[in-house]
Amino acid sequence: MTDQHSPAPASTLPPIIALDAMGGDHGPAEIVPAALSVLERYAAITLILVGQRDVLEPILKQHGVEESDRLRIHHASQTVEMHELPSMVMRNKKDSSMRVAIDLVKDGEASACVSAGNTGALMATARFVLKMLPGIDRPAICATMPGTNGPTHLLDLGANVDTSSEQLLQFGIMGSELVSAVNNKSDPTVALLNIGAEEIKGNDQVKQAASLLSQSPINYAGFVEGNDIFTGKVDVIVCDGFAGNIALKASEGVAEFISQQTRAEFKRSLYGKFAALLSMPVLNAIRHKLDPRRYNGASLLGLRGIVIKSHGSADRVSFAHAIEEAIIETRKNVPERICNELETVLNERRDN
Amino acid sequence: MTDQHSPAPASTLPPIIALDAMGGDHGPAEIVPAALSVLERYAAITLILVGQRDVLEPILKQHGVEESDRLRIHHASQTVEMHELPSMVMRNKKDSSMRVAIDLVKDGEASACVSAGNTGALMATARFVLKMLPGIDRPAICATMPGTNGPTHLLDLGANVDTSSEQLLQFGIMGSELVSAVNNKSDPTVALLNIGAEEIKGNDQVKQAASLLSQSPINYAGFVEGNDIFTGKVDVIVCDGFAGNIALKASEGVAEFISQQTRAEFKRSLYGKFAALLSMPVLNAIRHKLDPRRYNGASLLGLRGIVIKSHGSADRVSFAHAIEEAIIETRKNVPERICNELETVLNERRDN
Repeated sequence: MTDQHSPAPASTLPPIIALDAMGGDHGPAEIVPAALSVLERYAAITLILVGQRDVLEPILKQHGVEESDRLRIHHASQTVEMHELPSMVMRNKKDSSMRVAIDLVKDGEASACVSAGNTGALMATARFVLKMLPGIDRPAICATMPGTNGPTHLLDLGANVDTSSEQLLQFGIMGSELVSAVNNKSDPTVALLNIGAEEIKGNDQVKQAASLLSQSPINYAGFVEGNDIFTGKVDVIVCDGFAGNIALKASEGVAEFISQQTRAEFKRSLYGKFAALLSMPVLNAIRHKLDPRRYNGASLLGLRGIVIKSHGSADRVSFAHAIEEAIIETRKNVPERICNELETVLNERRDN
Repeated sequence: MTDQHSPAPASTLPPIIALDAMGGDHGPAEIVPAALSVLERYAAITLILVGQRDVLEPILKQHGVEESDRLRIHHASQTVEMHELPSMVMRNKKDSSMRVAIDLVKDGEASACVSAGNTGALMATARFVLKMLPGIDRPAICATMPGTNGPTHLLDLGANVDTSSEQLLQFGIMGSELVSAVNNKSDPTVALLNIGAEEIKGNDQVKQAASLLSQSPINYAGFVEGNDIFTGKVDVIVCDGFAGNIALKASEGVAEFISQQTRAEFKRSLYGKFAALLSMPVLNAIRHKLDPRRYNGASLLGLRGIVIKSHGSADRVSFAHAIEEAIIETRKNVPERICNELETVLNERRDN
């Protein structure tokens, strides 16, 4: 990105992160220990556990801790179930842990929130409560994917199913600002996800987005194919939410298949079990390197506030990573940076 | 599928497969040995090596074989390069190994053809020369994906970027017939690939296709997500070519990433190398089970003839699998079966 403007200054206020403590498959049983582990590692932060006080207090007690300045309970009487329709959640769950956590961000009492709950409800509620940044139509879900030569940020992962070329440009701008803020990378490369078949290269939206991105101040790197999500060839890969969600889930599927086949083969014979035992240190190192929990915490970009979506099945290790993402984005003022960059792009376009 | 009609009878004529011997990254150096290995394993078949006689003869000689009734050379003076535009190939490469191999199918001199060449050119040429089956708009690329509970057929993998709901129904019919013919499976289950985000479940085409499929005689199993490509939960998964291609390539990317990280970790230390040596029989068994070469050979469905697309980088083992796919589809009369089933579906719809 050309540096005609200075990015928003990093925030100097200590991060206060609101946690939807009732969300996800495991709820507070994993979210409370995740919070405690993050508090141990980060000195100058505050966490707010949003949820039912009578559920949360006993769990804190189990872990031998009490409420403090750094770890508060904020009571919310309702919970959002994983299968609930966003429209019903918006109407009937105004005192849910999810909604109240987002309200705290809106009211300035928290600098970010994290939820492992129902994605559709989280997105709809965040959009309704926080509103979009000027120039952005809808939020995009952005996650970090590991790769041979380093990580790549992929967006959108399912927030938008029918995506215009204009939206793909917006995703490019948001992804670029996120990476430059969070990874301290100036001028990150942004590519468009496309398919390999020649001539009929891509649908109309992708072709038009290529033209918009190459005319923008973004460091546009052209088209990449699906396999490049895991090569780290570029910093940001942009696609519509349908393709992005399918790429993400297919990747999870193949990783699970390989892992399952590998376990089965090592267990098949006595010799295999012996080899597995001897290889344990190496197998553990591989497991750690490929551990998807290290990449948990997707950003809902384009909102007037920081909202981090944790995987629904996240355990304490995984949820702690999502909280860390919220801390970093708070410190780097990600929404303000995106807002500034958007303004630059829109102004440049107006001037030309 | 309801069995109101009998499927096309299996073909009793011995398969004659035309091989585009000059296509792919390795050309005849791998394709000729692939052909020889298939001839050893299948008694009653004939292979035609289509390509430059002066290139092919010396390679046959190297392998100590001569032309015979079962292995003929059919001269074609030109070759299609991987980067060439389909439109240019159609216009200027009428005596290419790819084009001539397809012509042989059209003229009834071969029962199927196999090419590792340029996908776009192969598809355009096949469609132009062979024409589509009545009721099918464009070919779809269908490949077998390995999974925990058995394989799944996924289509389309990139032949169609903007796919209507009507086309998704056609893909469902074609995939269902392919599986029931090739895997001897009656009433295979067919699902639509969709995304996980609630409420906004899928784009309009997917929603309409769901309605078309559930009204059809297909054994429609509803929506699945990307990870189900590798669970073997259903026999056939249908999607537009953009999403399908990205799912396929992303899966290849993550598998390559895992394999590369695993190799690196075993090589990192002396202990790792020792563990790898001891685990070699297990690691080799895993490699064999996950070997993508075993799944090489995608079908171009919907044509009036059998065309198999091999991966461009296929070696002899891999290309031999693609030839075997062509043999099986010939024996099972796949295009005729698809044609009959389409007619049934269209008639039923007309009657209602």
